[in-house]
Amino acid sequence: MIEYTDRLSRAATHMQESEIRKMGVLGGRVSDLISLAAGYPDPTTFAWEDYRAIAVQLLAGKDGAVLQYGPTRGYRPLLESLVEIMASRGVHATVEDLVITTGSQQGLDLVARLLLDPGDVALVELPTYTGAMMAFRNAMGTMAGVHQGKDGIDLDHLDRTLMHHRSQGRQVVFLYVTPNFQNPTGILLPREKRLALLEWAARRDLLIVEDDPYGVLYFEDSATDADMRPIKADDEEGRVIYLSTFSKTLTPGFRVGWLTASPALTAKFETAKQAMDLCTSGLDQRIVHEAIANGVLTRQIPGLRRHYRHKRDVMEQALAAEMPETSWVQPKGGFFIWLELSRDVDAEALVPKAIDQRVLYVAGATFFAEASARNFIRLAFSGALPARIVEGITRLARAVHAESVISSSSRKTE
Amino acid sequence: MIEYTDRLSRAATHMQESEIRKMGVLGGRVSDLISLAAGYPDPTTFAWEDYRAIAVQLLAGKDGAVLQYGPTRGYRPLLESLVEIMASRGVHATVEDLVITTGSQQGLDLVARLLLDPGDVALVELPTYTGAMMAFRNAMGTMAGVHQGKDGIDLDHLDRTLMHHRSQGRQVVFLYVTPNFQNPTGILLPREKRLALLEWAARRDLLIVEDDPYGVLYFEDSATDADMRPIKADDEEGRVIYLSTFSKTLTPGFRVGWLTASPALTAKFETAKQAMDLCTSGLDQRIVHEAIANGVLTRQIPGLRRHYRHKRDVMEQALAAEMPETSWVQPKGGFFIWLELSRDVDAEALVPKAIDQRVLYVAGATFFAEASARNFIRLAFSGALPARIVEGITRLARAVHAESVISSSSRKTE
Repeated sequence: MIEYTDRLSRAATHMQESEIRKMGVLGGRVSDLISLAAGYPDPTTFAWEDYRAIAVQLLAGKDGAVLQYGPTRGYRPLLESLVEIMASRGVHATVEDLVITTGSQQGLDLVARLLLDPGDVALVELPTYTGAMMAFRNAMGTMAGVHQGKDGIDLDHLDRTLMHHRSQGRQVVFLYVTPNFQNPTGILLPREKRLALLEWAARRDLLIVEDDPYGVLYFEDSATDADMRPIKADDEEGRVIYLSTFSKTLTPGFRVGWLTASPALTAKFETAKQAMDLCTSGLDQRIVHEAIANGVLTRQIPGLRRHYRHKRDVMEQALAAEMPETSWVQPKGGFFIWLELSRDVDAEALVPKAIDQRVLYVAGATFFAEASARNFIRLAFSGALPARIVEGITRLARAVHAESVISSSSRKTE
Repeated sequence: MIEYTDRLSRAATHMQESEIRKMGVLGGRVSDLISLAAGYPDPTTFAWEDYRAIAVQLLAGKDGAVLQYGPTRGYRPLLESLVEIMASRGVHATVEDLVITTGSQQGLDLVARLLLDPGDVALVELPTYTGAMMAFRNAMGTMAGVHQGKDGIDLDHLDRTLMHHRSQGRQVVFLYVTPNFQNPTGILLPREKRLALLEWAARRDLLIVEDDPYGVLYFEDSATDADMRPIKADDEEGRVIYLSTFSKTLTPGFRVGWLTASPALTAKFETAKQAMDLCTSGLDQRIVHEAIANGVLTRQIPGLRRHYRHKRDVMEQALAAEMPETSWVQPKGGFFIWLELSRDVDAEALVPKAIDQRVLYVAGATFFAEASARNFIRLAFSGALPARIVEGITRLARAVHAESVISSSSRKTE
């Protein structure tokens, strides 16, 4: 066989496999494993019967376009539904401001390819979503990390980081943020910080990439619609590229997301998408459109909020009972708890021991663009059934506590 | 609004919209237009009832994984079906040699991103598939065109072109070819040329990207299974990356294609795909898998061959009757006739006049990586109904002949 090393592009040499997906493969081999790792929605919440009825209608064969190649920008009626969805989030958008993407991940890839030249800097929160970092890295972008406090991104550190990179002659192109229930920290960025970010981006003249997969999944005990208002809603000069998806509300099996930006940018995104996959699945787009038009989405959301809120509560209670030494900021929505373990625990080294206990999580270091504290883990309360969450935390506690005993006893003997 | 020009990556500045897709938009605005432009399969051939029955089963809600995130490499049972499909084409492949792609276009994008650094050279046939050129261009690759005769790529010119670019210090990474019913020429590359290409690639040490969307759609009057044997089938050292799709056999609405390459490359493709769209639509993959497992694909293919052969015959007869001054090589499969008009006709300039006559085609120049003859057009006989093909050719003849009269009379008055 021939060697490929010298034939790969620099970008290919640069690419790194997702740690989370790698762990998924690992976990797949262990029986009775409880995964608190991936941010999977709960398939018991999916509107199976509605999708089935919709699919039966769509596949009647009366409209050949259902299974034909479609427009790159997206299925027109779905684009029109998105105009309304964006309006409900406070964002005035027209069809010209929208592009349907093959999942929100394609939106991130589009952003990376269209905006980052090799070496260009994307500012990212510490920690942040790994899929965004992968996309930026695959475009040979550089990431500069910005600290977060308990109320989200540190505005002073943000500006210092920007100025530092600019002073080094680097092109800083955008800030990537997830204001609603950030992945992995679960933080909800306060309204005044959102406005401050927009003002700062205008003053410093850079773009904001606002990722919002979780915004509608807020828990009504502790957040309201107004808290989720996107930065994009107050963007009057086209500085914000807003991404969202149906993966967390309808299902991720339909690979349907979208992005909203100024028409000059969406035209470029459309052109780029042509060469990436021509168009997003026509059947997926139409099922999503019908689910919106028939009220399935609207009907689903209140139930989803209750469902995931309950799971969050279950996980919090289990953590309080089983791992009283840990701490976390209560997430007001989304899928994740960002857990701080005792300072002496190395969460990455602990993964194999947790797998021995048949529980899976993601080590916090995975989400950092630069070196970080080792004692954080991300727990997803979204996918597992409540009883399994409880059992999962029990198993996790066992793994962590065995580790702590070892490390404290080894400290004693040192 | 802010300006974006200086914020775009060099790749973005470089990107060009597909002429074919642009024309699709143009054509969408004309009523009673007959499109012979896009290579769309005929939706009346789709197995609507089978897909409906399969979807009903899949969406019963018994298996949550149907609508969950799935593995990046693809749905395992579908990968296993692809092993058999590849075997039926003479290619020994394992699951490790395969990646499912979101349509074959994503396969081309993967190839471009993983193999081309800015300025690297991809050798392409003159003319060739525009979607491949878009993908190579978006990765900032350079294309070098190689002439084709009536029996396909010119081997002497191929080697001269390679050596010329190497002598200029450029990295020539691969040759992109479509041996079966090439898009747009319809040419079937003879077996001896396939073997010669493989031998040449080994001698000159470069890769071959073999694109095969149309191979199974051969017309039994004039081709046999053996004629379609992929170059990949004789590749013992991992020099060939083979791409294919279900878009032309099942439907393009399911965005499901695949690529076959050595495991060292497929691992890289999988990593890159993670950051591009995480995974291909789970529902689409499962419908395709069930359609294969239930024998739908096998049942469909003989009918599709007859169907498209008939349409080719209808188009050829109409051309012979209406446009006797034109010439073409009879395609033995696939979707296209590559028509040579009189030397004095500029096919691109003629497009608006054809649209006035309510017929659409693609001007040949679109398919050339470099300056070319102006008097070729690509006609798709795949999508339109037979009666519309005849009417379409009548309209085309009207547009062309009006043009010829004008140009010959203007020549007289000069």
